[in-house]
Amino acid sequence: MEALSINDVKPVAIDDATAPGLAQHKTAIAGLFKRRRVRVKELLAAGLSTVGHTVTVKGWAKTLREAGAGAFAFLEINDGSCFTGLQVVVSKDTPGFEAVMNSGGTGASFCVVGNVVESPAKGQLIEIKATEVTVYGDVADPSTYALSKKRHTLEHLREHAHLRPRSNIHSAAMRVRNAMAQATHSFFNERGFLYIHTPLITASDCEGAGEMFAVTTLFNHVKDGNVPKTADGKAIDYSKDFFGKPSFLTVSGQLNVETHCCALSDCYTFGPTFRAENSNTARHLAEFWMIEPEIAFADLSDDIDLAEDYLKYCAQYALDNCAEDLAFFDKNVEQGLLKRLQTTIESPFVRLSYTEAIELINKPENLKKGKFEKKPVWGDDLGSEHERFITEQIYKKPVVLYNYPKEIKAFYMRLNDDGKTVAAADVLVPKIGEIIGGSQREERLSVLETRIKEATGHDPAEYGWYCDLRRYGTVPHAGFGCGFERLVRFVTGIENIRDVIPFPRWPSNASF
Amino acid sequence: MEALSINDVKPVAIDDATAPGLAQHKTAIAGLFKRRRVRVKELLAAGLSTVGHTVTVKGWAKTLREAGAGAFAFLEINDGSCFTGLQVVVSKDTPGFEAVMNSGGTGASFCVVGNVVESPAKGQLIEIKATEVTVYGDVADPSTYALSKKRHTLEHLREHAHLRPRSNIHSAAMRVRNAMAQATHSFFNERGFLYIHTPLITASDCEGAGEMFAVTTLFNHVKDGNVPKTADGKAIDYSKDFFGKPSFLTVSGQLNVETHCCALSDCYTFGPTFRAENSNTARHLAEFWMIEPEIAFADLSDDIDLAEDYLKYCAQYALDNCAEDLAFFDKNVEQGLLKRLQTTIESPFVRLSYTEAIELINKPENLKKGKFEKKPVWGDDLGSEHERFITEQIYKKPVVLYNYPKEIKAFYMRLNDDGKTVAAADVLVPKIGEIIGGSQREERLSVLETRIKEATGHDPAEYGWYCDLRRYGTVPHAGFGCGFERLVRFVTGIENIRDVIPFPRWPSNASF
Repeated sequence: MEALSINDVKPVAIDDATAPGLAQHKTAIAGLFKRRRVRVKELLAAGLSTVGHTVTVKGWAKTLREAGAGAFAFLEINDGSCFTGLQVVVSKDTPGFEAVMNSGGTGASFCVVGNVVESPAKGQLIEIKATEVTVYGDVADPSTYALSKKRHTLEHLREHAHLRPRSNIHSAAMRVRNAMAQATHSFFNERGFLYIHTPLITASDCEGAGEMFAVTTLFNHVKDGNVPKTADGKAIDYSKDFFGKPSFLTVSGQLNVETHCCALSDCYTFGPTFRAENSNTARHLAEFWMIEPEIAFADLSDDIDLAEDYLKYCAQYALDNCAEDLAFFDKNVEQGLLKRLQTTIESPFVRLSYTEAIELINKPENLKKGKFEKKPVWGDDLGSEHERFITEQIYKKPVVLYNYPKEIKAFYMRLNDDGKTVAAADVLVPKIGEIIGGSQREERLSVLETRIKEATGHDPAEYGWYCDLRRYGTVPHAGFGCGFERLVRFVTGIENIRDVIPFPRWPSNASF
Repeated sequence: MEALSINDVKPVAIDDATAPGLAQHKTAIAGLFKRRRVRVKELLAAGLSTVGHTVTVKGWAKTLREAGAGAFAFLEINDGSCFTGLQVVVSKDTPGFEAVMNSGGTGASFCVVGNVVESPAKGQLIEIKATEVTVYGDVADPSTYALSKKRHTLEHLREHAHLRPRSNIHSAAMRVRNAMAQATHSFFNERGFLYIHTPLITASDCEGAGEMFAVTTLFNHVKDGNVPKTADGKAIDYSKDFFGKPSFLTVSGQLNVETHCCALSDCYTFGPTFRAENSNTARHLAEFWMIEPEIAFADLSDDIDLAEDYLKYCAQYALDNCAEDLAFFDKNVEQGLLKRLQTTIESPFVRLSYTEAIELINKPENLKKGKFEKKPVWGDDLGSEHERFITEQIYKKPVVLYNYPKEIKAFYMRLNDDGKTVAAADVLVPKIGEIIGGSQREERLSVLETRIKEATGHDPAEYGWYCDLRRYGTVPHAGFGCGFERLVRFVTGIENIRDVIPFPRWPSNASF
């Protein structure tokens, strides 16, 4: 049989299996796939127990420096599995020494085989005494390398989004982002919620939660700068488009996930959503991820309970799984981050109606302290300044506001018995402001139809499939939406939303 | 403090906590969120141990029929948590009996409080003797209800995609789909792969894996059917578009995820991808989900090992977690499904080079047996008929083909030493054909640049950011893509790809 070529590197001695604590996977399930290396994370975690073993480590140089008057070199290697790098000592007589010294240093990639020894240096238990080093890839011209050793601004990193995972801050943010995604799936899966993939492209007219991007193939049929037009020449001929009518990128999976909730009970979506708003700020993205659970046979208090559990679970998951990265953020990005997360976990969220919140902010001492640009008036949406004042200044912990005036909320939120408010709730947290928005859904067909007319001006018939859920076996249900990037900002303390997503999209920016 | 209104249903007696086996969550973590009901899944699983307890169950009627000359009714209720419904006996003197009888039956929704009793009927251990039934929502006019009790065609269900989660086949498919998503995250998370959200919208020119959808806001600026044009009037003025240049929906996250793999080591994406191909078939969707792992410091054999482990893990996960749904599919959709999955898990995948496969199919006995429309010739892509013949007729289990002619594969696949083939591998499985396609990536800058010119005709400079990964610390790496809907088809036996995704999109169809 024709052999599969082995292109990785010449076979090297690895005795991972003999070093205690160096299991390849957390899972017990046997498999074929094995890394032909030890990850830095497992090696550092196993610590002194690995001393005396031969290991193979692969990664990129964070730093490389000559020492002992050229007798040896210190190579700090990182493979992205954890924040800390691994110190490798390469002496002049080690095979590969010269190649290492000519590799360009920071950013070059290596395969290191060596012995684990106790480290004489401070701040690290172990280091590697290399017996052989292979350079996979050098940095031929370090002067052109955008991720050189020096400190870079966040703007510079954004401009080199393809290389910024090699920076401390972005790699830590991506590990935390991964942890929050895993936490999200664990949380809902453990509670019996089904993950439902709601559609991204939709020709449905009944969203209206924000400006939408059009999705089209009509630009493939441009003639003299014209897209196909209708017979009278006055409008675009969407019958020639891929879906035969105007189609858009979704702004929320909620209405779609309700269809599955009203049959399969508790569900959630976790996927990308889009806003074509011309917002060039540190708080908005044109493409972002959102988590939207939907609970069957539930009301607003169940919804708030779930939201509080979810945020606490995520904060705890981060503390449990990303301690090293969070320590970096606590030290370099937001002093007090760890304490803030601990407070989130330990204290019950404050629950306050919208009306009570308006009264609270309007107390003279709060108006004085808050120095608001705008005094809040019942009936108006609360500003970000008000929301953050409540959660950061008054309570210093998460606050849930509920029962908002119907005029400032969406048509699908359940009308309360007062006829003036709806069963909606927003969760406000220090540092972010609103992180979650939810509601009980209007399950009464006649009330829903009235609200559609009132709030959207449309004919309820345009919302036919959504109304069908109320026409046939309606049930009380509730849900919320959590902006995933806000969650990552909440857990890392990172200010700019562009720095918590691999490739941010904003007006005039869809590079990479 | 203003009270949160409880809109669910009048308070009912629940003693879930006292019935053994009825824990609300699998997790031990305490929380606020508690269902005010027992799920049918947990109740049936706890079985006879629940006899004598009072429980609250909520769900939709699968069937409702009068019995005993009107003295009582049999209500089969389902809450989507599992395939099987729960039988409820409602006697004439039970509060709510009349409302139940007037509910319209199939599709109506209920809150049932009652005592668990041993069932005298065959095929079920327990049933509920109702003490009170509340109708949440009726089906006022059953004649208009698209999901009435009778059997429906798959076409009919697709036309009512908002209600089809109430059908046996779609609800089972969605539970299996959920399980496969959870399995995917568990598999990669346990192995230390980071979940990376690659972008959906891209202005990058270097994809080219298929026809793309344009993403635009220019339709907001249409005047007399014209989108904004350049000064000479001959072309579309993309400078007025949201991203300032032509932008598209991604066809793959691979190139983007490589950036993070070349810094954080092993990563994966799992997200929607798009094809604007005019394929109106049971095998294609315009929007589908894809899993794309990328392994650092790995070659093609590592890649194939990971793919084999992954598919086996998913098959085992389905057998472990979806036994009831799989039994339904085995009986009603594909006889032999369970055996096929068991074979997948138990036998090593066959590994065969493309060249060997061509020779194999061209053996006279196989040409005779296969009755192919087209005889396979070295250098041509294998047809679906050839792929399925190899995996279904010759080996009757999964087969991995590797080392394909470079002319039929993408520019980024690593050139083998023969100069003619690339280190690519496809995994073929019975029932589906190709389910996974992967490759070792070309990590040598000069070879990559040559291949870009050769295979795409473009200037390598247009692929600048992708080439940078080879310019600065390149490493051997490999990865694959797995169509998620193909995986769900593989595990359920469902033929049409439109039946394994909540809201399928194809030419002229983006409803809901």
